Amino acid sequence: VKVLNARVEALLTTKNPDSFITSRVPKIELKYEGIPGDRHFGYTKLSNNRERMYPRGTEIRNRRQVSILSLEECDEMARRLGVESIHPEWLGANIVVSGFPNFSQLPSGSRLLFPSGASLYCEGENFPCIHPGQIIQSNYEEIPKLPQRFVKEAYWLRGIVCSVEKEGSIIPDSTIDIWVNLEWQDRRWVERGEDVEVR
Amino acid sequence: VKVLNARVEALLTTKNPDSFITSRVPKIELKYEGIPGDRHFGYTKLSNNRERMYPRGTEIRNRRQVSILSLEECDEMARRLGVESIHPEWLGANIVVSGFPNFSQLPSGSRLLFPSGASLYCEGENFPCIHPGQIIQSNYEEIPKLPQRFVKEAYWLRGIVCSVEKEGSIIPDSTIDIWVNLEWQDRRWVERGEDVEVR
Repeated sequence: VKVLNARVEALLTTKNPDSFITSRVPKIELKYEGIPGDRHFGYTKLSNNRERMYPRGTEIRNRRQVSILSLEECDEMARRLGVESIHPEWLGANIVVSGFPNFSQLPSGSRLLFPSGASLYCEGENFPCIHPGQIIQSNYEEIPKLPQRFVKEAYWLRGIVCSVEKEGSIIPDSTIDIWVNLEWQDRRWVERGEDVEVR
Repeated sequence: VKVLNARVEALLTTKNPDSFITSRVPKIELKYEGIPGDRHFGYTKLSNNRERMYPRGTEIRNRRQVSILSLEECDEMARRLGVESIHPEWLGANIVVSGFPNFSQLPSGSRLLFPSGASLYCEGENFPCIHPGQIIQSNYEEIPKLPQRFVKEAYWLRGIVCSVEKEGSIIPDSTIDIWVNLEWQDRRWVERGEDVEVR
């Protein structure tokens, strides 16, 4: 078992249900459906192009309840795009963490445990789409093609999505225990190169 | 994307809620909580030694709603234990599949799509525990130490557990499309041997 740590830097939720932009809050009370009042709250959601195995708009279990960004990866995104900074609010983050290198590469099936006992289950990378890039563009109008460049440059930097495995509260300036899922290490799949192809 | 196939050989649910032994049924109607009437039905469950990150008995999201075995791996278990056959009923299987090599190694995050549109989400390997070994022992009293040997020999053969991602019906003799999660292939974690240790 590999248990690593990260720090909670900020908490955010959507204020306006028509927008994915989030605003800072002092505390989040996680429920099994997600964050009450947040745009992504719900046991189920409608599928989109991130779940290509379903016809678009199919009702499926909601694995995108909570979005987490890393402070260091936000800075790296800003550097690559040549902008002064990227606010986690623009990307719809619910939690900003620090102190965990390559956070966006956290494997699916990893757990994030908070001091209250609350726990999030990593459902994988949050693949970049064009909408946050459009918000970034609106804040840096002088820099060309930010939406398109965001989609390309934000891979591996845009954080992860999680579902709630155990209810409870989260507050800033606390430490997260991250139980990394290492199942791929002992999968024979890894050795069977002829059987697999990268998506 | 890698999409492979398997075949539904049998469907089973628990009849007696005090036992994990399952019995054959002609159809299963998957709900977001699992299989109605089955022992493992529920949005949440109490944690046990399979979820060591929580104190035993903690209420958490239920990722073990549905248990799936492969026919070929059942045969291989019987061969290794030196018994004539192992019935999927004894292991509490809900679905028996065939035609998918190394089924127990299907990575977490893979999807199993059924012709009705119903879908299961792979939550990882079903780690062997001693109870099915005791049932096997009771059926082969002349063979020594089957419970202990089962725990050891059934690794990689005991199938997977799933949660329901999309509701719908399942019937035998149908084909499953399996969308294999290959995220580990492009994780830099794989290259960072110094950062990881096998659980």
